[in-house]
Amino acid sequence: MASPIFLASGHLVAIGGAEDRTSNLEILKKVFVLAPEGNQEVAVIATASGIPDQILPEYEAAFSRLGASQVHSLGIRDRQEAADAETVHLIEQSGIIFFTGGDQLRLTNVLGGSPVLKAIRERLRAGAVVAGTSAGAAAMPSTMIYNGAAADALRKGAVNMTFGLDFIEGLIIDSHFLERGRFTRLMEVGASNPEHLGVGLGEDAGVIIHPHGILEAIGPGHVILIDSRELASSNIAELAMGEPVSVEHMILHALVSGQGYDVEARRYLVPHELGAILAESR
Amino acid sequence: MASPIFLASGHLVAIGGAEDRTSNLEILKKVFVLAPEGNQEVAVIATASGIPDQILPEYEAAFSRLGASQVHSLGIRDRQEAADAETVHLIEQSGIIFFTGGDQLRLTNVLGGSPVLKAIRERLRAGAVVAGTSAGAAAMPSTMIYNGAAADALRKGAVNMTFGLDFIEGLIIDSHFLERGRFTRLMEVGASNPEHLGVGLGEDAGVIIHPHGILEAIGPGHVILIDSRELASSNIAELAMGEPVSVEHMILHALVSGQGYDVEARRYLVPHELGAILAESR
Repeated sequence: MASPIFLASGHLVAIGGAEDRTSNLEILKKVFVLAPEGNQEVAVIATASGIPDQILPEYEAAFSRLGASQVHSLGIRDRQEAADAETVHLIEQSGIIFFTGGDQLRLTNVLGGSPVLKAIRERLRAGAVVAGTSAGAAAMPSTMIYNGAAADALRKGAVNMTFGLDFIEGLIIDSHFLERGRFTRLMEVGASNPEHLGVGLGEDAGVIIHPHGILEAIGPGHVILIDSRELASSNIAELAMGEPVSVEHMILHALVSGQGYDVEARRYLVPHELGAILAESR
Repeated sequence: MASPIFLASGHLVAIGGAEDRTSNLEILKKVFVLAPEGNQEVAVIATASGIPDQILPEYEAAFSRLGASQVHSLGIRDRQEAADAETVHLIEQSGIIFFTGGDQLRLTNVLGGSPVLKAIRERLRAGAVVAGTSAGAAAMPSTMIYNGAAADALRKGAVNMTFGLDFIEGLIIDSHFLERGRFTRLMEVGASNPEHLGVGLGEDAGVIIHPHGILEAIGPGHVILIDSRELASSNIAELAMGEPVSVEHMILHALVSGQGYDVEARRYLVPHELGAILAESR
């Protein structure tokens, strides 16, 4: 593979949660315009959610307002439903596939290895946009966080991780990031393995992950990046479980709408640099 | 002045709040042993606190257990009391001066420019240890934070600052830092002026600020440092109030007990480096 880290050829959009669904739809609009030409059919997957009957109509209304030709509301509550041929068929038709929030462990537990998930990966490779908010964003990479100590997660073992939906490699995504003060979660992860970029999404903020791992911040909120590649030292390997982890030298960025980042090159992109790179790759 | 940034010739100890006051007293013990030789008299100042009658006996008991020859419990509720000759006299006798938590604005509002504050600065210059927890830590530098948006403080104007007690320059201190997810507060401050080091103290954690600006982490918790000196870019000057601030390149460290940092050189010190530097300066 030319670029082993980034699997997507379509676009991924990871959203930090609590995005506007009823007013200006700033972020959902950005998702919608990434749909492949001539296909404005949307599949909304509420597997993560504990309240799918409440959340699905909200997204149905929002995407309809944006001009969707059809919105398929998919609860997908269990592994039987994740193997349902009709559901797979609806995914195969859709240009936009959207994951709601909820519990990311429910998402992977229900969808992992399923025909529905395989169909979504196939759609992504074929150029569809796959978007997700909160749990739906956290689950996108090959590895995800599904739990962490609320107060001080910079303690050995305080963050629980497992396999994600594997739409992208090379980064880890956390949501509600500023609002719930989750910096220590990504610091803990970065100390455990400095190779992967930490992406912390604020509420009503998101990143478009363009092919080749170019991130573009969208929405009124913040995207925080924690880059541990130049980590100079950490005591993590010497500690007992629960003991406080030290960290020498991580790099911290805060992106706002229009700014970007090249994950592979670890390069911050101001708006005109991002614009030039995206124009070039078109 | 040889070292314009660091005013203290005695020791400062800044504590993140909620330090153990009844069990092992790990942090208070560290404060106590820094007392100048032959003077184990302690003054506890509860000006910041809304519940001085509850908090003062706790510190009196703790410092008595540690071997204090006397503990002076000083409420100092208003500017009249901050000018009281007897109180000034008790400060002048004390080898340890300790500020409780509460509201740092009450602390500066009551003590700013007062005879009591002048006496404390004089004691510090003469080699006493001045310690403070929570509000008592935040108020120590020449500039302090006294309020900030809880969720996302990385917005122009979201952090309120004013003059502190001016025991030290060159850094800004925030407390309850990991527990209340305050990273964005110090990022906002760092974007507004990258010169000053951001020191975020976790609960039951602290730093000893040795002369010449050598920090030593103490306690079971974390000390987070946010170093903005190499800030590459930020949009802060272009924004309207309340708009989200971008940040390109801040450096992040997490210190645990026994690790240190040279503020002037911006150098992380692993335990043996810290030990060598402290031994040399004795």
